[in-house]
Amino acid sequence: MTTIKQVASFAGVSVATVSRVINETGYVHEDTRRKVEAAVKQLNYKPNEVARSLYKKKSRLIGLLLPDITNPYFPLLARGVEDRMQENDFRIIFGNSDEDRQKELDYMDTFIQNNVVGVISSTNDPNADCYAKLKIPVVFLDRTSNDSPSVYADGAHGGRLAAQEIVARGSKQITVMQGPAHIRPAQDRFRGAVEELQQSSIAYHVVKTTSFSFKEAELWAKELFNKHPDTDGVIASNDIVATAVMHEAHRLGKKIPDDVQIIGFDDIPLSSLLFPPLSTIRQPAYEMGWEAAGLLIQLIEQSQVTKSSVPNLHSSIFTHPSIQLPVKFIERETTRKVDYHG
Amino acid sequence: MTTIKQVASFAGVSVATVSRVINETGYVHEDTRRKVEAAVKQLNYKPNEVARSLYKKKSRLIGLLLPDITNPYFPLLARGVEDRMQENDFRIIFGNSDEDRQKELDYMDTFIQNNVVGVISSTNDPNADCYAKLKIPVVFLDRTSNDSPSVYADGAHGGRLAAQEIVARGSKQITVMQGPAHIRPAQDRFRGAVEELQQSSIAYHVVKTTSFSFKEAELWAKELFNKHPDTDGVIASNDIVATAVMHEAHRLGKKIPDDVQIIGFDDIPLSSLLFPPLSTIRQPAYEMGWEAAGLLIQLIEQSQVTKSSVPNLHSSIFTHPSIQLPVKFIERETTRKVDYHG
Repeated sequence: MTTIKQVASFAGVSVATVSRVINETGYVHEDTRRKVEAAVKQLNYKPNEVARSLYKKKSRLIGLLLPDITNPYFPLLARGVEDRMQENDFRIIFGNSDEDRQKELDYMDTFIQNNVVGVISSTNDPNADCYAKLKIPVVFLDRTSNDSPSVYADGAHGGRLAAQEIVARGSKQITVMQGPAHIRPAQDRFRGAVEELQQSSIAYHVVKTTSFSFKEAELWAKELFNKHPDTDGVIASNDIVATAVMHEAHRLGKKIPDDVQIIGFDDIPLSSLLFPPLSTIRQPAYEMGWEAAGLLIQLIEQSQVTKSSVPNLHSSIFTHPSIQLPVKFIERETTRKVDYHG
Repeated sequence: MTTIKQVASFAGVSVATVSRVINETGYVHEDTRRKVEAAVKQLNYKPNEVARSLYKKKSRLIGLLLPDITNPYFPLLARGVEDRMQENDFRIIFGNSDEDRQKELDYMDTFIQNNVVGVISSTNDPNADCYAKLKIPVVFLDRTSNDSPSVYADGAHGGRLAAQEIVARGSKQITVMQGPAHIRPAQDRFRGAVEELQQSSIAYHVVKTTSFSFKEAELWAKELFNKHPDTDGVIASNDIVATAVMHEAHRLGKKIPDDVQIIGFDDIPLSSLLFPPLSTIRQPAYEMGWEAAGLLIQLIEQSQVTKSSVPNLHSSIFTHPSIQLPVKFIERETTRKVDYHG
């Protein structure tokens, strides 16, 4: 199937010029017009459908669905998306799903009704029907999907790193807090930490948690020190949970990091402002939003050029690029200083 | 000028029934139809324009412009707006202005291009042309405007409250941090605090600040204790700045609250998680967003019923309701305990 790009290339002109000729939408020099018409004929290009797609008035709106903007991890993701979309003249319809299936469906419906040209979603279920049925590009953000474009951080490596760093700094009785079962990145980092501890033959306990809420985390922090009072190192499921562990350690009169070391996950803005400032595994939230926006823009551009000639975008010639961003250990003051790297 | 509501009331039927008669869009019993037609004639009601306005396909989109969603004060505002809009089937196009005039103008332009039916803006300049020219309702959020609907907290009272509480708890050498000059709520709370201190004949110093950035606040916190080393009470311009003051006090070995008491402003989620947890003046951010959304919905409904009959909405019969929400002192552990209320 010939594309407008091939016609442009064959004729030695820009895609915009080919479009002007096909759609008679602007002045083109007579010689140029003849070259384009020859190329169209030679390549057996069927301009009408593509022309329609190119010139149909497209919205510049995309839909962004996040679990909850008041969770301090998400504003940076949202800002990364917004900055790149704004630079590219796209605008964002924004919604919070609260990880509620019905709200998610409602938002997806109204995104479509509002004629968005693409969607970025931090859903817990990238395989849901509402995404499979979409006729516009979707990028999953902070979520992995085997079949669809997604942008996420390397959680498994993050978990391993947390375990390595806390062990290298001398913790011998480690408790790992396992994040919510339905959130895959939480499980990735948990698995990474546990694998590393097993390989290093370090004793560890697990405290299961079901949310990232600070209120609930206070209870798990109490459970942690009740059930495992000898704990001298905590790998928390995220920074909010680490904060609750810090509060409980303060309450019990434990010194941080002398009596207990604590490592969080995310590096939300709060973490550097705690006392002591929290050592954590940094997910590059802003960059993740920025990359997701870039990927979506690319997919939108591809789909707008070739949609008409490819009946089903999702089973088509497109690969499904995913972007995995690196994480890193941010050393602050809830872990002890060691010189083991040198 | 007769409204559709008056026609409905006169005919003893619902507005929807009047619309069905006028627009011939559904079944209406013949007797009812005659009653409506009689009312239209009697009241000299001009149905066509209103009918057009009522039945023209309206978007359910509103524009929301905030300075920066990564400032921890704004996610709660945004969430309040979103929750109420979502309940009412409106969707939000969201943008960050960075308090940059050009970005603000760009967003307002694209809001209009995307056919929003109303705007909520936390602008520093409610009198800007781009708002005066709007033909759709606008509500200013966290900003006061004399001429336009706005929703804000009682900053002046908040400032007085901060001064009262810190004085009642024994501070005698108070330093007040004055927030950015271009942000009116920051000036309101500063003025309130200073008025209260003057009335109480308490000595105070002022440290001027130009932003709410933590990085810059660290420098002002140093300046504060350098220039005014005897300070035993700090009224900070907001919680982020208070956090920087706490860090500097820790660094200098000052005990909080024994050596220095600190009161913030806002009550962002961070504040209860600090060590010690921060005493502050709470602005009800979520409720402010919620109320702004409710006010905008009300204005949208008014404008859609009567727009066609009122040439200029802004100079019309509508009052400009504004909502001022109360603030309150949240006592935590950066202030001393006193029993002065009892």
